[in-house]
Amino acid sequence: MTEPRIRLGMVGGGQGAFIGGVHRIAARIDDRYELVAGALSSKPEVAKASAEELHIASDRSYGSYEDMFAAEAGREDGIEAVAIVTPNHMHFPVAKAALEAGINVICDKPVTRTLEEALELQQIASSSSAFFALTHNYSGYPLVRYGRELIERGDLGKIRLIQVEYPQEWLTQAPDADNKQAAWRTDPKRSGKAGCLGDIGTHAFQLATFMTQLELESVSADLTAFVEGRQVDDNVHAMLRFSKGAKGMLWTSQIAPGCENGLRIRIFGDKAGLEWAQEKPNEMWLTPLAGHHQRITRRDDNLDSEVATRGIRIPFGHPEGYLEAFATLYTDIADVLAARRKGEKHPMEAWIPGIDTGVTGMRFSNAVLESSESDSRWTALID
Amino acid sequence: MTEPRIRLGMVGGGQGAFIGGVHRIAARIDDRYELVAGALSSKPEVAKASAEELHIASDRSYGSYEDMFAAEAGREDGIEAVAIVTPNHMHFPVAKAALEAGINVICDKPVTRTLEEALELQQIASSSSAFFALTHNYSGYPLVRYGRELIERGDLGKIRLIQVEYPQEWLTQAPDADNKQAAWRTDPKRSGKAGCLGDIGTHAFQLATFMTQLELESVSADLTAFVEGRQVDDNVHAMLRFSKGAKGMLWTSQIAPGCENGLRIRIFGDKAGLEWAQEKPNEMWLTPLAGHHQRITRRDDNLDSEVATRGIRIPFGHPEGYLEAFATLYTDIADVLAARRKGEKHPMEAWIPGIDTGVTGMRFSNAVLESSESDSRWTALID
Amino acid sequence: MTEPRIRLGMVGGGQGAFIGGVHRIAARIDDRYELVAGALSSKPEVAKASAEELHIASDRSYGSYEDMFAAEAGREDGIEAVAIVTPNHMHFPVAKAALEAGINVICDKPVTRTLEEALELQQIASSSSAFFALTHNYSGYPLVRYGRELIERGDLGKIRLIQVEYPQEWLTQAPDADNKQAAWRTDPKRSGKAGCLGDIGTHAFQLATFMTQLELESVSADLTAFVEGRQVDDNVHAMLRFSKGAKGMLWTSQIAPGCENGLRIRIFGDKAGLEWAQEKPNEMWLTPLAGHHQRITRRDDNLDSEVATRGIRIPFGHPEGYLEAFATLYTDIADVLAARRKGEKHPMEAWIPGIDTGVTGMRFSNAVLESSESDSRWTALID
Amino acid sequence: MTEPRIRLGMVGGGQGAFIGGVHRIAARIDDRYELVAGALSSKPEVAKASAEELHIASDRSYGSYEDMFAAEAGREDGIEAVAIVTPNHMHFPVAKAALEAGINVICDKPVTRTLEEALELQQIASSSSAFFALTHNYSGYPLVRYGRELIERGDLGKIRLIQVEYPQEWLTQAPDADNKQAAWRTDPKRSGKAGCLGDIGTHAFQLATFMTQLELESVSADLTAFVEGRQVDDNVHAMLRFSKGAKGMLWTSQIAPGCENGLRIRIFGDKAGLEWAQEKPNEMWLTPLAGHHQRITRRDDNLDSEVATRGIRIPFGHPEGYLEAFATLYTDIADVLAARRKGEKHPMEAWIPGIDTGVTGMRFSNAVLESSESDSRWTALID
Repeated sequence: MTEPRIRLGMVGGGQGAFIGGVHRIAARIDDRYELVAGALSSKPEVAKASAEELHIASDRSYGSYEDMFAAEAGREDGIEAVAIVTPNHMHFPVAKAALEAGINVICDKPVTRTLEEALELQQIASSSSAFFALTHNYSGYPLVRYGRELIERGDLGKIRLIQVEYPQEWLTQAPDADNKQAAWRTDPKRSGKAGCLGDIGTHAFQLATFMTQLELESVSADLTAFVEGRQVDDNVHAMLRFSKGAKGMLWTSQIAPGCENGLRIRIFGDKAGLEWAQEKPNEMWLTPLAGHHQRITRRDDNLDSEVATRGIRIPFGHPEGYLEAFATLYTDIADVLAARRKGEKHPMEAWIPGIDTGVTGMRFSNAVLESSESDSRWTALID
Repeated sequence: MTEPRIRLGMVGGGQGAFIGGVHRIAARIDDRYELVAGALSSKPEVAKASAEELHIASDRSYGSYEDMFAAEAGREDGIEAVAIVTPNHMHFPVAKAALEAGINVICDKPVTRTLEEALELQQIASSSSAFFALTHNYSGYPLVRYGRELIERGDLGKIRLIQVEYPQEWLTQAPDADNKQAAWRTDPKRSGKAGCLGDIGTHAFQLATFMTQLELESVSADLTAFVEGRQVDDNVHAMLRFSKGAKGMLWTSQIAPGCENGLRIRIFGDKAGLEWAQEKPNEMWLTPLAGHHQRITRRDDNLDSEVATRGIRIPFGHPEGYLEAFATLYTDIADVLAARRKGEKHPMEAWIPGIDTGVTGMRFSNAVLESSESDSRWTALID
Repeated sequence: MTEPRIRLGMVGGGQGAFIGGVHRIAARIDDRYELVAGALSSKPEVAKASAEELHIASDRSYGSYEDMFAAEAGREDGIEAVAIVTPNHMHFPVAKAALEAGINVICDKPVTRTLEEALELQQIASSSSAFFALTHNYSGYPLVRYGRELIERGDLGKIRLIQVEYPQEWLTQAPDADNKQAAWRTDPKRSGKAGCLGDIGTHAFQLATFMTQLELESVSADLTAFVEGRQVDDNVHAMLRFSKGAKGMLWTSQIAPGCENGLRIRIFGDKAGLEWAQEKPNEMWLTPLAGHHQRITRRDDNLDSEVATRGIRIPFGHPEGYLEAFATLYTDIADVLAARRKGEKHPMEAWIPGIDTGVTGMRFSNAVLESSESDSRWTALID
Repeated sequence: MTEPRIRLGMVGGGQGAFIGGVHRIAARIDDRYELVAGALSSKPEVAKASAEELHIASDRSYGSYEDMFAAEAGREDGIEAVAIVTPNHMHFPVAKAALEAGINVICDKPVTRTLEEALELQQIASSSSAFFALTHNYSGYPLVRYGRELIERGDLGKIRLIQVEYPQEWLTQAPDADNKQAAWRTDPKRSGKAGCLGDIGTHAFQLATFMTQLELESVSADLTAFVEGRQVDDNVHAMLRFSKGAKGMLWTSQIAPGCENGLRIRIFGDKAGLEWAQEKPNEMWLTPLAGHHQRITRRDDNLDSEVATRGIRIPFGHPEGYLEAFATLYTDIADVLAARRKGEKHPMEAWIPGIDTGVTGMRFSNAVLESSESDSRWTALID
């Protein structure tokens, strides 16, 4: 029997929003979801028009997430999962309500605005039957997963260095007033105290710890808001100390002309080094120390890794990109939810960033902010 | 009112096939289609299982395309378009039947096995109310379209040279017997007389003429089957003479180790040159003669081209790839079909490869074959 | 005892010339030569000023090459070798005179203006005690040599394809009247009938045959002079058939905006492919068919090749370039000449392009010209 | 009248040494020097053999630098300049003696082992008639100079960020006992307290301040010796605060597998960003914020910069590398010394790193060491 599609609702993502559309494409690519309900906007007009555009039945387009969760709970064909794609400050209440209603959650990052909220959500999640996934989408790239496996297998030897960076250019100058994306991201009330740090720095941090499976122990950071009048950081410099003696640096910026979406990681062990960059996601450099031959490993359906290849749809040389990596994460989540329908646990649960990743991310953010406020004092990641 | 999705049927593309799945993803990405019927395989078991997997209702899974066209014609919610994703030799009969039934056609390339068939189909298409689209998917890439516009605007000056190549490695050795993709592609009965030439050479040719809007007038070619026992060419060398005095070269190969899906084009005018490669589709090199500054133009939602930007879903630095370019073509077709529902003509019709492109492609193939058999004599592209 | 420097004279290369200065740097880099005499210009004033600038004693600055050879023959410390860096049409008479005088020759390419001259020079060389070297400098690059060794060892398997190209942009438009380099290169009287073909096409051809050690058997070519009024070709398209069943293409152009000095070669065997580009000379791509891992091989003093590493002066990561490759050729010649002082034969003689390379190059040029004039008929390389 | 060559002596650089040979090639490339004397080794046998190999007259091969300076002072044709290419700990006494003898100094970096020595040398230099040049060779690259000019002209706007890195791999493991280069570089007695920091970190620092002409005000650093038993740092992480509000990061390492000689700098202003990497020295990325077109600027003899183009010998597309950049520095010094012969001051004096650069470098080293020892406390660069 074919597995029925996951019945999905969405909060946020109405007309004019950005990331909601990305989630919807991600959900569609492998055809594992059906978007059947939505509370797409706090503005009724926008919500209605958006739902119609998305072929959502008018009686399942809701004015609020509370309404949606209540109404859908009463339907036999009610939603099984909700995608939360609102600005950051709404992640917490929506996720909380969903988990309490037993609805699986697919939440955009960062998990919440504050560590306190994240910890509370962790509590709620631990006592909920629902699954909580945090869309750190870059971990969906096949070669990111392959890199993690190579490191776990020991191909790099003992990890010593992790150099991660994520520069962008789009906030180099004060944005126009009508730039909706820029507006909420630079407003501490909606995005939290961490600006660039929360928006993209957490992706860089998550990538580093996802691939190496090391824990960040402490950080020495220097945050800056270069653009006049900006209330949150637009550049983050940080030195990192990981578990097992590894060290690293993290740089993230939104004021770096020439940089588009420059997430890049280099990891060095005592046997080999690797490098992967999000803008060229179909290749990974891997250089064993011996032999002086740098090797490019391509995204390839023959890679000796099931986890990497399950996210590959087309043969090598046919580039897959950001949307496919995002889709892979959605498909993994679908597999998990489908297994849970039968009371089973799918092995991909271990690969999907969840509430713990969210909490760690908030701890990272807090430690960076605290260190920067303390003249870059080394600051541990604790509660 | 929201435009209803296009009701789509599919011929071919059952379990074990490759390109059918690509078409389905392409159709889903922008959510403009609903796959409601299929004649997915000539084997009833495979057809049934494939339909179920694709959530096609069992009564709309057909044993043959003839059955499907007949039955769907009788339904009010019958298919409006059919995607033909069979091996090459079936393109002609299926497309013919669809056009005659007034069903819009989305046909994988090459259009047919022979020029004769293509010409007949051209006749049929000209007297059919249905729209015929040929999925030369590489023309869906935003920067390919942007390049075409730059050339049309005159930014390159008078075009002199077109160097196009498309090397792959996957047939370097005789493939295993169970490699289904390789089997039909190297069998003249199913793929036509042209091997590598028909499979990927036609893509290279189409890209060159699509971007420059020049006509190929004659060709001097040298075909080879390097692998012992291979019945069709696996390497094509050709020199090209275009209209308006432009010249070029075309190389395509399936025996080039290190090459994955290396479609690449370089176009030189008397004012500037450009270069685009399918494996790095989000960038295009454009070098004006003056100034000695090479420029990379990125896929970017701010490009000064409506046609290019309509195929861009996410901001620069977030790579889109092969599936998105394919999806863009599907979405363009959806726009055309939606306009036709209302008796209107959508401007994107001019950008979608159709039956004329198919005929020209077959003329190209024939001329190349004829030239190669005549010791590379310059051979004109005529009927 | 330290080997004394080779006493070198130069013909051509006075003020305003280009390639003479390159030869002099090449001779100096490894300090194996001493430039002691010159007939640097046909204009006495220029000859005198140039000699002074180069610290050549005034009594060894000559008004003509004939004077130089005569006078130097009478000196105990007379020149042992002469570098010929004149425009093409003077190569023959100067080389002839030098060989007849027993003076070793280091001649810029192409060897002569015509095949007849080249054959005559071959005769003269064969009966002369002097050594004749032709500065096909690109064969001095360590990785070009390494590639040749890999092919000889069989790492690529049986060679099937050789794709070589050499595009430039500098003659895209008719040059200014005062561009001395452009003037003689586009004047058939001084450069020979072959324009771009002779200037850089011969380098491409030499590289292909040097690396693979295959012979070019026949060629089908299409030459064009795109710039109005130009008397020699500025673009060459050619298809190639080599010994042992290999095939290839050659493209060379001087009207390709965006291309600087784009000599690039790709060689494919049935086991692996390689790629090397002159503009990134410190790396070579080598991709074995198995494993789907492309490898970059760096210029590296640990390469398993004596011939490759003898041309490496500094550790990997410290780029060497065009001048160093040229110097390596000069140093090889110095080793040969030093061995000959003692009546010995140095093993590097086999690696230095000589009169036979020159003759083959002229045969190539002639065949290309003849083929192009015969509507691209396949034309064999014969006398 | 032609300018006579500069008469050069050398201290260090005997057989088995590395950087001495580089200096000699650099001095020869543009033919502005004559190596006439040497104290090439502290071992008499090696000194003698080395001198002979270099064609230095036996009576000008000295057993010590003191002897050389004394004897050469007494000759009319005595050396005008001395190249100091010893291990670091000998830089100070040799430079001191030379300056006191009025001999111009070309000293390899770092200037001395300690800041105290550097300050003393600064005193001596200020009261000496001789010129002191420090071979921060990377500042000889044409595009590094061009970048400095662009920044000075304001093309990047106000500088905000400087991200500089210099990773290598060659000390990833404990080196063999017979690796002479590794031995002295990891021995605090000969190289100073700073390991990787002094060897290559100072190059990175110098590049950053050379290009931007900003002063480093303070540093927060974390040094590590990853290889067991290593007595000096092999990895440096540092955050930087420059004058005028600019910030940056510096990473340098000798334990990064896959990195060869990875000096790379990225500089971001509020109008544009640039990037230059030593391993691809013939290109520089320059991206103005407006327009989303990244541009590559090539090393090109038409650059609108006299200082950049004076270091270019061959046309674009013909790569120049490390040795040419080093040679450019030598040639600049020759111009300065030739001008001084006539009592003139050459404008290139301003571009040649000298004793002040050396002192600043030592201050940088000291501040980094001090910060690292103080748990990465921000540490100012003071005496």
